[in-house]
Amino acid sequence: MKDLLLAHINRHISLTNVEEEEFKGIIAEKKVFRKSFLIESGVMVNELYYVVEGCLKAYYVDDLGNKHILQFAIEDWWITDFNALHNNIPAELYIEAIENCTVLAISTVALEELYIRIPKFERFFRILYTNAFIALRKRVMSSLHRTNSIRYLEFFERYPNIERRVTNYHIANYLGITAESLCRIRRDLGM
Amino acid sequence: MKDLLLAHINRHISLTNVEEEEFKGIIAEKKVFRKSFLIESGVMVNELYYVVEGCLKAYYVDDLGNKHILQFAIEDWWITDFNALHNNIPAELYIEAIENCTVLAISTVALEELYIRIPKFERFFRILYTNAFIALRKRVMSSLHRTNSIRYLEFFERYPNIERRVTNYHIANYLGITAESLCRIRRDLGM
Repeated sequence: MKDLLLAHINRHISLTNVEEEEFKGIIAEKKVFRKSFLIESGVMVNELYYVVEGCLKAYYVDDLGNKHILQFAIEDWWITDFNALHNNIPAELYIEAIENCTVLAISTVALEELYIRIPKFERFFRILYTNAFIALRKRVMSSLHRTNSIRYLEFFERYPNIERRVTNYHIANYLGITAESLCRIRRDLGM
Repeated sequence: MKDLLLAHINRHISLTNVEEEEFKGIIAEKKVFRKSFLIESGVMVNELYYVVEGCLKAYYVDDLGNKHILQFAIEDWWITDFNALHNNIPAELYIEAIENCTVLAISTVALEELYIRIPKFERFFRILYTNAFIALRKRVMSSLHRTNSIRYLEFFERYPNIERRVTNYHIANYLGITAESLCRIRRDLGM
């Protein structure tokens, strides 16, 4: 399991065997069963998660009890309540497993120590956050001017092969459109 | 001018005098006059800009010729077409000065060399992109569920004292609402 994450990291930096072993020492495997929570709104968050297997959703519940999906995470994605984690405030988000999942958890305390001992990890996470920032800018730009049909197609580019793993309701919610609009788009696209 | 940027950087990392001088050597001051462009759609982008003075907007022009403002940048902000810069593709955005501006430019080639010579900069830019990513997540979350009045107030929290520097049209465009809606919101808020 941990080797998958190391392969992911070694795409951007080169770790020695000793560094790999040290890194493995700070990550912990966690199982999250379908419909159970990795994070619940209101709790303090001190871990970042890498998805080895399964599918999760991060969502916000507003004052009226409506859910708003902010992110999905599938294999090879990272997920947490980033705002809560980095600003040391209670979680605003729920992170719930859509399927049975295996994730690798890294605590921020261990990560801060790792940055000092192996500064290459600064580079890895710089690249990771830069890519995440750019992907999110694309999503914001897309929501500003693209048609819902194009945004639907972009969703599948971003989350390949996800259609059998999440419901249409999930996808419509993520895109901020109604289930009826989504049906119409799928029909128009011949999907 | 360059000392302002060094103060900004030294909030997160500690540079020695020698490192500060080396960094100053790779940044170049640029003047951008009101209504002129720092980046135009279609050009290759190889610089990141830190705003020392002035106000700029980054926007996309869609196929129908409509502008969509993605970002404003005022003093102490960074701006560029991040997607074009990091993926080495032509710019999709225009970056235009709303006021006469002074920016400091850093080329990515020089920055990549700097990462190797002074790895502390990996840390600085990791923190910078992490914060940018978190701020953008908040904006996406806000657009998913907040009322336009709340989003208008959040805009002023994000860009303090900007109201005399940009037009209501600009703000409405950034929020993705009509100028009429913005007028109504301002009236309701007693602004």
